[in-house]
Amino acid sequence: MNDKLLEIGKNAKAAAYKLNLMDTVTKNKILNAFAEALGTNVDTILTANQKDLANATDMPAKFTDRLKLTEQRINDMAEGLRQVAALPDPIGNIDKGWQNDAGLNIEKKRVPLGVIAMIFEARPNVTVDASALTFKSGNAVILRGGKEALNSNLALAQVLRDVLKTHGLDENSIQILHDTSHETANDLMHLNKYVDVLIPRGGAGLINAVVKNATVPVIETGAGNCHIYVDKNAELQMAIDIVVNAKVQRPSVCNAAEKLLIHKDVAETMLPAIAKALEEHGVELRGDTTSRKIVSSIVPATEEDWSTEYNDLIMAVKVVDDEQQAIDHINQYSTGHSEVIISDDYQSGQEFLNKIDSACVYVNASTRFTDGFEFGFGAEIGISTQKLHARGPMGLNELTTTKYVIRGNGQVRK
Amino acid sequence: MNDKLLEIGKNAKAAAYKLNLMDTVTKNKILNAFAEALGTNVDTILTANQKDLANATDMPAKFTDRLKLTEQRINDMAEGLRQVAALPDPIGNIDKGWQNDAGLNIEKKRVPLGVIAMIFEARPNVTVDASALTFKSGNAVILRGGKEALNSNLALAQVLRDVLKTHGLDENSIQILHDTSHETANDLMHLNKYVDVLIPRGGAGLINAVVKNATVPVIETGAGNCHIYVDKNAELQMAIDIVVNAKVQRPSVCNAAEKLLIHKDVAETMLPAIAKALEEHGVELRGDTTSRKIVSSIVPATEEDWSTEYNDLIMAVKVVDDEQQAIDHINQYSTGHSEVIISDDYQSGQEFLNKIDSACVYVNASTRFTDGFEFGFGAEIGISTQKLHARGPMGLNELTTTKYVIRGNGQVRK
Repeated sequence: MNDKLLEIGKNAKAAAYKLNLMDTVTKNKILNAFAEALGTNVDTILTANQKDLANATDMPAKFTDRLKLTEQRINDMAEGLRQVAALPDPIGNIDKGWQNDAGLNIEKKRVPLGVIAMIFEARPNVTVDASALTFKSGNAVILRGGKEALNSNLALAQVLRDVLKTHGLDENSIQILHDTSHETANDLMHLNKYVDVLIPRGGAGLINAVVKNATVPVIETGAGNCHIYVDKNAELQMAIDIVVNAKVQRPSVCNAAEKLLIHKDVAETMLPAIAKALEEHGVELRGDTTSRKIVSSIVPATEEDWSTEYNDLIMAVKVVDDEQQAIDHINQYSTGHSEVIISDDYQSGQEFLNKIDSACVYVNASTRFTDGFEFGFGAEIGISTQKLHARGPMGLNELTTTKYVIRGNGQVRK
Repeated sequence: MNDKLLEIGKNAKAAAYKLNLMDTVTKNKILNAFAEALGTNVDTILTANQKDLANATDMPAKFTDRLKLTEQRINDMAEGLRQVAALPDPIGNIDKGWQNDAGLNIEKKRVPLGVIAMIFEARPNVTVDASALTFKSGNAVILRGGKEALNSNLALAQVLRDVLKTHGLDENSIQILHDTSHETANDLMHLNKYVDVLIPRGGAGLINAVVKNATVPVIETGAGNCHIYVDKNAELQMAIDIVVNAKVQRPSVCNAAEKLLIHKDVAETMLPAIAKALEEHGVELRGDTTSRKIVSSIVPATEEDWSTEYNDLIMAVKVVDDEQQAIDHINQYSTGHSEVIISDDYQSGQEFLNKIDSACVYVNASTRFTDGFEFGFGAEIGISTQKLHARGPMGLNELTTTKYVIRGNGQVRK
């Protein structure tokens, strides 16, 4: 464990103590000041971002697009900060309260988690988004971004830290690791004394590495091998609209659909039309033998396909004998993110909702709705695909914990 | 990873799928049948327990008492099963529900976690308690008890499994590891494919080993270095009653108080009386220099004392300059379980409640109330001292997770 990181952890814990006691008006004032400061520091931020882009000559275009900042994108971040300022503050809410048999008044009260660490890839906007959400929920944050975005991240974090300092607040509420080595990331995963929860944000490789190595509690986010099952009682046009939307509207994100299952009774009538609509949007289809007999343009799927999250214009297709086979297939291969049944049959819908073990289970809607904003949370730090603490879209409330506050008048246990 | 354990994991997952769909009436019927079956199998269970006791010749008396079963203790377990049958079933509750902007009906519904693993020490009653609570909450359980209690645990689990089989249900709803080696326990901590959460129950050594090694999500329970702070505005008699109750009523459990902090303004007047009351109950006091000047029978405390959970008739005492020093001391040394202020001052109480970062924070009551039964949950699987998922006493609700159930009529994302 390196000394610098221990100091960062200690500083974060001290900052968290103060954040826990900060009132909502102050937090909102600072969030708006963050937004303002991004606007006045556009040039500094863009200069830093240019350095990162200049170093990123080997990076595929898809990733440089995520890395690149523009004045518009910085304004969007500022707008995001103002939106978080406008959200209700979950801290201090009483989830429930009661009087026990001994006459104690017990309240289950929302409090910050404390210190949140985030490990993420080369997306500078995460620096600002994560800082906003953790600050609003009263948590200190330790950020460790991808090395390709280091200059951008440092510049953005410095703007926020300067605002904290100017207002006489603890700038260590937001800290960012200058050292982006794997060793230090690994040390961060073991900083149990100071870190209350670690949230990795990125691809499956990053998330698996964190789950495997971390001793601090982790919330897994973002792996989405999402399925759509077209039942024998589906409406064809609805099936086409939902499958196309779920697959092509934004194929790179975790709530995009990756798999299409279709009931054998309607495969011959519906699959050709669905496949045609997907192919018109440039989707490559991979399928099982039965689906390939029905639509000749489908190429063979391998066993690996069923568990792969493509994040691309590819979709695998399987014809199933009945709904139970679809459910079993999904429960076997899914990452537990979002699954859909398209059906006009009451019983089929109910069975699907009850038997599928995923964070979000839909009847007749697109997987793309699995999102903190679409759910109405006003913000999102990620989509949890695990079952502990938070499952599905995580907003401000999911960045808090509770404590029991108990008031007595001398009670002792008999 | 050994093959036998993989099979156990697979069987647990298959059983969990069926448990998820089981109605409350059936679950309650089975819980009552478990209770009945314990009664009719008293002799078999006691014979198995005799074997364990015969092997436990080197065990300290305190531990053989936990290991020993009697007809009365078996009847108590049966009564516990009937009480769990009578509790409300959390599964199927809708925590909240709303319609989003796109017209989707979203429900946040309580569902079982899936497969729960428990690693515990030589206390056979945990086999029955844990089986009851996981079964009622719709979860499959994999139990790994201490090797000293293996015969007792196997006999108890067999009684429960036979009931399941007789009723045509999946006996793998409750599984117990015959292999109590450290290697297999370690493999269980890495069974991510099948285990949704691991709950260790036992001493600090066991819990730390699990936290350090496990890759499956863990809920830490039971470490309790609990503090009582006697403020300058405390009532003496209340302070005596609470401190004595919290320390001596049951010193071996995690909600017993281990530390006494006292404001310097009242140390001279109150500490002698409190110390006298504790010493009359056989409590050894260890203290800082100031406390030893006031009460000569107090022996010196070392730095290690401040972070030690004695689980015994020992208490460490420190005189503090003011409330803030007490709060800082507690936040530094506490395990985050339960802390108490004794004070008649409104402001002091509020400050303590707000600034202490522990699962349960009290004004004017004994730490001994941190308990699922005392809280009114009707059951308890442990006391969580971590911040994710559950914090404080864990009842049936804490053995569940949620999923979002979403009903649409063809919505796609714009």
